Amino acid sequence: MEFPNTIGIDFGGTSIKCALTRGPERISEIIRLSTHELDTPEATIAAIVKAIGQLRAESDDTIQAIGLGIPGAVDIEKGVTYNLTNVPGWFGVAAGSLITEQVGLPVTMDNDANCMAYAEWKFGAAKGLRNVLAVTLGTGVGGALILDGKLYRGSQFVAGEIGQMSVDYKGVDGPYGNHGALERYVGHQQIHEIAVRRFRDAGRRPDSSPELESLETLVNAARKGDDIAKQVWKDVALYLGTTLAGVVYLLNPDAIVIGGGVAHAGDVLFDPLKAQMKSTLSTEFWTDLQILPAELGNDAGIIGSSALAADALGE
Amino acid sequence: MEFPNTIGIDFGGTSIKCALTRGPERISEIIRLSTHELDTPEATIAAIVKAIGQLRAESDDTIQAIGLGIPGAVDIEKGVTYNLTNVPGWFGVAAGSLITEQVGLPVTMDNDANCMAYAEWKFGAAKGLRNVLAVTLGTGVGGALILDGKLYRGSQFVAGEIGQMSVDYKGVDGPYGNHGALERYVGHQQIHEIAVRRFRDAGRRPDSSPELESLETLVNAARKGDDIAKQVWKDVALYLGTTLAGVVYLLNPDAIVIGGGVAHAGDVLFDPLKAQMKSTLSTEFWTDLQILPAELGNDAGIIGSSALAADALGE
Repeated sequence: MEFPNTIGIDFGGTSIKCALTRGPERISEIIRLSTHELDTPEATIAAIVKAIGQLRAESDDTIQAIGLGIPGAVDIEKGVTYNLTNVPGWFGVAAGSLITEQVGLPVTMDNDANCMAYAEWKFGAAKGLRNVLAVTLGTGVGGALILDGKLYRGSQFVAGEIGQMSVDYKGVDGPYGNHGALERYVGHQQIHEIAVRRFRDAGRRPDSSPELESLETLVNAARKGDDIAKQVWKDVALYLGTTLAGVVYLLNPDAIVIGGGVAHAGDVLFDPLKAQMKSTLSTEFWTDLQILPAELGNDAGIIGSSALAADALGE
Repeated sequence: MEFPNTIGIDFGGTSIKCALTRGPERISEIIRLSTHELDTPEATIAAIVKAIGQLRAESDDTIQAIGLGIPGAVDIEKGVTYNLTNVPGWFGVAAGSLITEQVGLPVTMDNDANCMAYAEWKFGAAKGLRNVLAVTLGTGVGGALILDGKLYRGSQFVAGEIGQMSVDYKGVDGPYGNHGALERYVGHQQIHEIAVRRFRDAGRRPDSSPELESLETLVNAARKGDDIAKQVWKDVALYLGTTLAGVVYLLNPDAIVIGGGVAHAGDVLFDPLKAQMKSTLSTEFWTDLQILPAELGNDAGIIGSSALAADALGE
């Protein structure tokens, strides 16, 4: 298959990454802009336009379209952003058409979780499957859906907020009064808190336990057989598996693809997660279900946004 | 719009109802067969074929298609039933093609919750909406989905099992090891148990409280202002609202349509349910969301199965 040359832009809370891509390949070095140094949408768009100019110069100007992944919701009909989660001042910004005005290329804007899901479905772990839930585990918990072979966005284009689903109707407060919100149980910080609690309960001093230094040390401890560290990941699997099993009962997907920093835990997370889900799903839902680690890693946002832009050319 | 004459069949755990329909209208009396008196699929199919013959005789034989709603999952690609929930002996029965062989008309088979959802979406409460969750509250809790303007069935055609989603990761056992399964909290029998507990806690003797005689008396007591009866419906709203809000965060639908016997509670249930959901959903998800009582009542299964059959004629 021949893919058009495109530019994929992954706008994140920390950095904005721009690169030339062609289908699943990233074919240039990433130009990285610091999100926090760009304090208005105007300044951000100007910096993105400049980066686009640099990338076009590198590419003999064969670029046909630009994809822009946004860290928050996008009204894809009106082509404007909603409020972005960690970047102030972005309500109702028509970023795509503002960029198009300056560079003369079509820009496709979408939510970053949608871009990641689209990338994994077009080129990654979920390639060719019909119904897929993509989950990102990091500071928070995000999600996106491919249903009946296309991206499902919902009525206001905000679908996929799996991190706000409840694991406990009387659980801890979520950000919107939603008790038991999953991301208050399995976000990066919350996993650390579970670990501190488990270590303390086991009579081990959290402040002098090197296992608790980072997510990586906690993963390594579990991998080496530390029972308390393993229990922490079982706790995470219980919360996450409860929500994911609920989504499976609702949507009966082919696969769940899990990415993001916390997913780097690998088998230490995936093994108890699969055990938890198997123990709570009836056979019709479990037998053919695949639970897969994401394959495209940090490039998923760039590749997915550019793939959405490339596919929009054909529409 | 002109609708073809069809026969809709609503195969339930108690009775099988067959009627002539045209679009949203049921245009004949219902022929009712007793499910339990028909102890094999063969006997059931023979009785259905006989009923079809009677209905065709009434209609001057203008019937073009037959819809068959099944109380359980249907593999719509292979055209066979899975195990049915309350009717033994139905694994792998090609009911549709067996009926077609005998009556010479196309038969469209689908799950009963899908039929109900389709009816409400084509002709009822959710007419013309793009993304809809339909819920049936009765002995158990069922569900079905219209997504991006069509019936969503999932990869093994078993999507929509909202009754198996968990409201509490450490809650009561569900039928598949799924702790906190919603239908173990808001099924007809469970509502009665909540009421008994609430009455007892309030120092009222359950066995001499006429309010507890039936769902209807419990609804009437709440409607008349009985605080304990109202609290029972608030409890139901808390469980149900937690799960429904989770589904809304995941799917961002236009509407949730709620039918089934328990939904007859009306405002006594809908008012606290809406309050519960409003208090746990962020604005983007709540503002345009409609929570609607089903409109087609007991005819939804007949109308929905026949509408699926009519629409299959055009495919």
